[in-house]
Order: sequence, then structure tokens, then C-alpha cells
Amino acid sequence: MAEDNVTPEGTTGAAGAVPSFLAQAAGQQQLPGTPSRPAPAALGNPRQDIAALDNLERHLFAHRYAEIGLSCYGPSIDPEAATPDRGEAMAILEEEDKALLCSEETGNLLERLSTMDDLLTDTQIAQVKILKRDRSQLVDVPAEMTSEFTRLTTESDAVWRKAKADNDWKSFEPYLDRIVSQMTKIANFRNPHADPYDVWLDDFEHGTDRAFYNNFFNQVKDTVVPLLAKIQQKGWQPDHSVVEGRFDVARQWELAHDLMDLEGLDRKTMFLTSTEHPYSDALTTNYAIIAAHVFEDDVTSNVFTMLHEGGHALYELGVDPSFNYTSLKGGTSSGMHEAQSRFFENYVGRSRAFAPHLLGAMANHFRGQLGRVTANQFYQAINRVEGSLVRVDADELTYPLHILIRYEIEQMLFSGQCKAADVPQIWNEKYESYLGVKVPDDAHGALQDTHWADGLFGYFPTYALGGAFGAQLRHQMIAEGMDWDATLASGDLSPIREWLRSRIWHYGRSLDAPELMEKACGEPFSPSYYTEYLTQKFSALYNL
Amino acid sequence: MAEDNVTPEGTTGAAGAVPSFLAQAAGQQQLPGTPSRPAPAALGNPRQDIAALDNLERHLFAHRYAEIGLSCYGPSIDPEAATPDRGEAMAILEEEDKALLCSEETGNLLERLSTMDDLLTDTQIAQVKILKRDRSQLVDVPAEMTSEFTRLTTESDAVWRKAKADNDWKSFEPYLDRIVSQMTKIANFRNPHADPYDVWLDDFEHGTDRAFYNNFFNQVKDTVVPLLAKIQQKGWQPDHSVVEGRFDVARQWELAHDLMDLEGLDRKTMFLTSTEHPYSDALTTNYAIIAAHVFEDDVTSNVFTMLHEGGHALYELGVDPSFNYTSLKGGTSSGMHEAQSRFFENYVGRSRAFAPHLLGAMANHFRGQLGRVTANQFYQAINRVEGSLVRVDADELTYPLHILIRYEIEQMLFSGQCKAADVPQIWNEKYESYLGVKVPDDAHGALQDTHWADGLFGYFPTYALGGAFGAQLRHQMIAEGMDWDATLASGDLSPIREWLRSRIWHYGRSLDAPELMEKACGEPFSPSYYTEYLTQKFSALYNL
Repeated sequence: MAEDNVTPEGTTGAAGAVPSFLAQAAGQQQLPGTPSRPAPAALGNPRQDIAALDNLERHLFAHRYAEIGLSCYGPSIDPEAATPDRGEAMAILEEEDKALLCSEETGNLLERLSTMDDLLTDTQIAQVKILKRDRSQLVDVPAEMTSEFTRLTTESDAVWRKAKADNDWKSFEPYLDRIVSQMTKIANFRNPHADPYDVWLDDFEHGTDRAFYNNFFNQVKDTVVPLLAKIQQKGWQPDHSVVEGRFDVARQWELAHDLMDLEGLDRKTMFLTSTEHPYSDALTTNYAIIAAHVFEDDVTSNVFTMLHEGGHALYELGVDPSFNYTSLKGGTSSGMHEAQSRFFENYVGRSRAFAPHLLGAMANHFRGQLGRVTANQFYQAINRVEGSLVRVDADELTYPLHILIRYEIEQMLFSGQCKAADVPQIWNEKYESYLGVKVPDDAHGALQDTHWADGLFGYFPTYALGGAFGAQLRHQMIAEGMDWDATLASGDLSPIREWLRSRIWHYGRSLDAPELMEKACGEPFSPSYYTEYLTQKFSALYNL
Repeated sequence: MAEDNVTPEGTTGAAGAVPSFLAQAAGQQQLPGTPSRPAPAALGNPRQDIAALDNLERHLFAHRYAEIGLSCYGPSIDPEAATPDRGEAMAILEEEDKALLCSEETGNLLERLSTMDDLLTDTQIAQVKILKRDRSQLVDVPAEMTSEFTRLTTESDAVWRKAKADNDWKSFEPYLDRIVSQMTKIANFRNPHADPYDVWLDDFEHGTDRAFYNNFFNQVKDTVVPLLAKIQQKGWQPDHSVVEGRFDVARQWELAHDLMDLEGLDRKTMFLTSTEHPYSDALTTNYAIIAAHVFEDDVTSNVFTMLHEGGHALYELGVDPSFNYTSLKGGTSSGMHEAQSRFFENYVGRSRAFAPHLLGAMANHFRGQLGRVTANQFYQAINRVEGSLVRVDADELTYPLHILIRYEIEQMLFSGQCKAADVPQIWNEKYESYLGVKVPDDAHGALQDTHWADGLFGYFPTYALGGAFGAQLRHQMIAEGMDWDATLASGDLSPIREWLRSRIWHYGRSLDAPELMEKACGEPFSPSYYTEYLTQKFSALYNL
């Protein structure tokens, strides 16, 4: 399954959430030479306050544009020697926009604006809501704590890389315990009344907590674990060899461009480049970047990476263009972003009805290898279910189990039920229990992902949630009369894009994911559409 | 001759020199939500002032990094749809760093620091000097005037593009008059006692004025015009057809990479990309970008563009790495930058001694077409002298005459001796008089360059001056005992790079061009080394 690092605007994870410059914002003495601290606004002058809001947004826009640009170009283009300087420049820019957002004057401005709903447009009301929320994620954490945490995760990322290469959990262990401990402390500063892990879950997906995810994952587990067991008992597997072989890399890049066309991305708004770890982001609604990778021995990886990243890009490009210069630009949450990427990767890309179009695009470049593969063979090959070791290689059905395991371990670490030293054993037991596989070593087990080393606790669950959001959106399209199979079979995805654009993408960050789901579907989010979809699809495919 | 747009740091041309945000810097009331205005510093506390200097430089570094990055990636990578948003983001970032530099507090800080030489390191003394100068270019111009000028040049650039395509001088005429008029007014605000054109000459090349350039160009003209006349009388021309043909574009890009190696650029610090109009810049001393172009029917254009842009990149990468986070980063002036690019393009690249290495690199990729060309044939072909119409296609000898014509017309416009309506006739007369060519239309005449439409009056002369700086540097290397021909013939340019690095590149902006020349050569700049070089080289080549 394709993997990426798209982060919704404003939730840049633990490291980003607690900037190291709050000495200023918290009212400590400010060095001359620091661009911050707007002069106090006149009290209660609405016209001036609205002008100040626009002005604040202009500066945040410019910083966001630079930060997204540099972070997008960086990993795909910059020589390695540039990394430390880029990191320093980015840190200073973040320092500036975070100091700006956290200043007392900005706080007062936002408080005053939030009492003026009758004088503000709907867009301005949403801007104030989002700015207040972004500010609240930053403002209460002491600067020393933030910089200490940034140093810790920078170091632990390097330690993790080496630990994974050397299959050496022990060296990473103390870092993991310290990260959990520091994230607990930071969460306590943010909200002393809340459970620390809940604070981080809410950061990535506003409105979620352990109760929400427990309910969600219980339903997923109750569906997927028995379904997988049945498939494994059955013993039959589709033939995967029909999509195997060696596929010329240059032609695969041409295919990648064709896939953007097929998905409905406008090449005039896109920059497609190559990188080790795929990602996508957008500088504005006029310009998205996809950084993908191509492996000579795995053409389907190219196909599903492109569809996945393309879904992220469609979301970003589909936001109301008038939000470009405001904090409402971009996707509303990590889960809703994954909903779009997995929609095009799985509900479109791994469907039987769309299979002829994907296969056709591929066969255009690889006639000799794929010209005689049938759509049915292709559909089966790309949906083969296996208990596997590595999350990013997982199939559509078992993917949420990989996430569930991480979610359960994150909870145990934060609640003190286990320590880093216990993680590999717990990990291996869960993989055997849920997925039926034996983990041979930690490099293919608890060391496989970078998220924990980077302090991104609370991020994993949004991957699975996104899949479930998408299933409900798909269900709603059909309930409203869309002929799903016929639409996919036509190869013209514009009705699907238009539906998602008008219900989801358009709103940017102005509505939260639960509001979007309810508005789009006429009912709150429910995991049942996801579990029903998985049951139907894989029961049919495996003839259970 | 290769052409590019490298601008030394801090002299971003007329448009950049007068930012539109000075309302704030000039003390007008500031909107809340604006990141500017540091709090007043305690008076006369040196430790605090030095900390404030570091802090100011950190923020300027981050903005410079973002601005150079976005402006470098932009034209070569971004889809066209991204241009307006990028322009807006860049304008806001510039607004921020310029407001920061122009604030009264920064002014007071720099004044205090400039009385503390005994407490500062040499680097800090240079930082204060450069920051004060950068600030002085911005601080006295009213904000309205700046924004009006920015709007004017944005519009005139678009009008000029169309005028050039349509060969329609008349449509461009009113813009040219207005640009000269506004640049005169801006210069008067900057320095009411100075001649306006002198103000702009000094911006691009600190320490220069009309008296300086008149003396310089008189010597150049007295050498080149009669030399060209003799060549034209002689009637003989080298055979250029030996380097003509069609050269596969993909293999030319491989050649471009090889040329970076040959010049001594470290690929690990470089990003080479393609663009319409070549340029080079560096984000830091660890990372330079070259944007070049490749024409199937002109392989020598590729070779000399790469050597030229590579010279710029070597300069930027050769600056003292400790200057990265200060305003001393980058080249000291436009002329000194051109000195480096033209050094590698002409003194190295168009020499007889280095010809086998260039030809060898080319023949590696185009054995069939170039395998039997001799080094002598190649040397003669790339040094054919012709009175030509278009500056960017000019040979090494006649290039400064193209510049001289522009310099003379710029002076006439600023002194009121002529108006825009008179320019084409004057242009055509001078081309006939100096270069012996008849200008068939304005598209190949007074409309060929973008500089005037962009308000870059005073920039052209630095192109010729750079050639002359380089000739004196080369002379000095030889005077100190370098065996010039043997060094080039060896193909190992490291002695030349090391000489330039230690005498020029290393100093970044800490020393001005005249100081650098005197320090490097033991005597002030003199144009005679340039005229002697040209006389010797082309007398020999044409057997005069």
C-alpha cells in the first residue's frame, strides 16, 4: 500500500507543535533584531481588527508558502549537503510565524474577533476558529521544553536509522521512553485535565480520542481478523505473477504522468519528481507537488503510489481558491487527507470496474509484458490478501490491522502499561495473533517505521480512519444515485471528483472532519460502511 | 556569449531596492498582525547589541534562504499557474525582511555597533558595514513611490515581451520614459546631491560612477573598435562549421554534467536543471543551482553556458562557510560575479591550451561528429569575431561594445539628452558605427534585452567590467609564477580555483570589489590588462 507523509496544515506533529521560540511569545524579554510583536491594537475597533486579521493571514501565508516549498523541493531535489542549512532556515521561519501567532496581541485580537460573529463573514469566522486552535497548540508549552524535545527527536531519528539498519532495538529503546515521557509532559502543559495520548490524537484529527478510536478499531478488528482467518484457511491465492517482471524505469515515469491524467490532475498545476519516500503537498490551490518513486521490479507500486499521492493532490488543489491566502488553505485533518488518497488508491484503483483503464494505461507502455493480461487477472493480482510483516507493503484488507497494532502499543506506552523494552515482544505477539505471521527480526518488526522516532505518536490511527471515511463517502455517492461501477467503467472520474470537490475539498480547513462527514453524508461518521465494504469485496474475491 | 541573471546579494535592482513596505519602516502606524519592529534595545550595552546583531542576521538568513530558494526553483520547476502566488509570497517575505532592516531600532543598533570597532571581530565590523549599506538603499524612499514603481515595471515587462514579439517599439516607448523618470525621482530621495544615474551605477557596483565607467569604456573602445575594423578588413574567418550539426539533447545534458566535473564543481553540492533563460544562484556555500538550456543545433552554447554559470556557482560555493548565516554570504558585486563567470567561460574556456579538454569532453558524447576536429580548429571556431546584432550571441572581443552602446544610451536617457522615442535611431547608428552592422528591426535592436523594461538601469556596465576584472586577475596569477598554459593544458584547474578562492571568493561581501582587486593584485584595478589581453589574443588569432 502506498505510503506518504502528507500532514494537514497546522498539525505538524509533536515537533512542530511546540516551537522553540516561545520565550518571546510567552512574554519574556525580546532581543532587538527580532521580527515579532505587533503593536497593541486599539481596543474594540472592528474595522481595524478585521484589517489586522487579513494582515496576520498574509504573513502566515508567505511563511507557509516558503516552508511548504522548501520542504517539498528539499528531499527530492536538494543535494544532501544542503540539509542542515535548510533545516536551520525552516526553523527560523517557523519561529517567526509561531511567535507571531502566539504573541499576546494576536491572542487578544483573536479573542476580540471571536465575539464579533455578526460583523464577520463565514470565512472570517472560520479563520478565527482555526487560528485560535493553531495558537492553542503552541502557546502554553515552555520554550525550554520545546527545544529540548526538538533536539531529542532530531537525535532519535538518527539513532533509529542506525538501529533499523543494524537490527538493534536496544540502542533505540531509551529514546523511545524519553519521547513518550516528554510528550506526556508537553500534553500536560497543553491541557492538564486531559489524558496525554488523547491530546495528541486530537492534534492530528480534531475531535478524536481513545474512546472514539477504540470503538472504531473494535469494529474493524471484529471484521478483518475473522475474514483474514477464513482467507488463510481457504488456501487459494490469485496469481500475482501476471503483474511481475522488469519494467523500464524511464517508461514507468511516462506511465506515472499518464496516471495523473487518468486521475484527473491537470499537468499545468503539477510538479512530479522522484524521491526515496513518496509524498505530496501543495503550495497553493494552483500548484501541487508529487514526489514518487519507481522500482524496475515493481510496476504496481508505481501505479498505486501515483493514485494515492494524486488523491492528496486533488484534495489540496480542490480547496476554495479564495482560501489560498488564509489559514483555511489545505486539508482539514490527517484522516480526511488519507480518505482522499485511499479513495483513489483503493476504491477507484483497486476496483474491478476501473481495472481495464489502469491495465490499459500500463499496457500502453509495456505491451509485451502486460498486453495479454486480462482485467480480471489484474484485479485479482492487485488484491491478493496476505498476512505480511511490513505496513507499507500491506494489502487493502490487512492494512488496518497493522495500524491497530501500533495504536494499541501507543496506548500501552502512554498509560505506562509497558516500556520501550517490552515493545518488540508485544509487537511480535500481536503480529502473530492478528496477522498470523512470525516476525523474524525487529528491523521487519517494531523498528520498521520512522514515526515514533520523530515523536509522531497519535498519527498512525488516522491512516485507518481515512480508509473508513472514504468508504462512507463512496456509499453516499451510490445512495445518491451514482452508478458506481458504470462511472468507473467509463474511465471518466469527473463525477466522483466533482462530488468530492463540492462536499469535501472545497471547504479546506473551514469545517472539521466530523462536520464534513455529516454535511456530506447526512449522518455522522460510522465505521460500518468500511467493514461492510471490506466484507463484501473480499468475500466475493475469495469466494468465501 | 552565455548570459545570466545572477544578482549579487543585497543589490536586487531597482525594483528590489525600493520595497513597497516602507510605510512601516518610515514610521507610519503599524497594523497588528505585522511581524516587525523589534522592541527598543537598551542603550549602549555592547553585549546585548552584539546578540541583537546575531539575531537580526539569523532572521535575514532565513528570509534570504527562502527567497533565493523560491526564486531559483520557480522558473525552472514550478508550473506557470504558480507564478502569481509565488510572487505574492516573495513580496511579503521581502516586505518582512526589509521592514526589519529599515526599522528605526535596527538603524539605531547599527549606528551604535559602528562605534564599537574595538569590541567587534573583523567579521562583525564587515557585517555592520554591509547591513548599513543595504539599509541605506531602502530607507529613504517613500512607500508609495516604491509600490508605484513595482507596478510600473511589472506592467512594462509584459508590454516589452509583446513589443519584442511584435517588433513594436512605439508601444514600449512611454514605459521607458516613465521608468527613467521614476528611477530619477527614487535616486533623488536616496541621495539628493548625487547624479541619479550614478546612484544606480553604485547600487550594482559599489564605488563606481560615470567618471569611472567613462574612463573604462574609453580604453575598451580605443582598443576594440580598431581591432574589429582590422579583422573585418582582413576578410579571413575561421571555419565555424566544424562545431555545427545536430547534437542529441539527452547526451548534451550528460555533457553538461561532465563540464561541471571538468570545471571543478562538486556534484554533491549542485542541482542542475533546465530553463529558458540560464541563471545560477546559491542558497548557501553548501548548495548552488545552475539552470541551463540545451539546443539541439548548438552544442557550443551548452558548453559556454555551463562554464559561465559554473563560474558563478564556484564563487558562491567558495565563500567562507562561516558567512552563511550573515549578510556577508554571496558575491560582493555584480561585476565581481561576472569576473568569475567570464573567467571560466573565456580565459579558461576559450583558450587554446584548454581546448583539448573541452573538445575531449564533447567528443566523448559526440564521437562521430567531433572525433576528428582538431584542438586548433576548435579554438578558432569558438573565437570567430563578427560584428553581430544580438548581445547574448556576441563573441569575446565585440561583447564589450554591445555593453558600451547600452551604457551610452542609458546616460543619454538619464541626462535628458534623449527620450525613449529617439532610442532606436541612436541604437542603430551606434551599432553601425562600432560594430559595422545594420540593424534590420528593433526586435533585433533596442528591444532585444529585458533589463530596461525591468528597471535595471546601471546593470549592463558590470558585464563588461567583470571581463576586465578577470583579465587582471589572470595577469596576476601569471605574474606570481603560475604557468598559465601548462596549467590549462594539464586539465586540472585546481591551482586556478585555489587562487581565486583564497583571493576573491573567500571574502564574500566582506570586502568591496576595489578592495579585493587591490588586495589580490597589489595594485588598483586597471583596464589595461583587459585591453592588452584582447589585443594579444585576437591579433595572434587573426594574424594581424
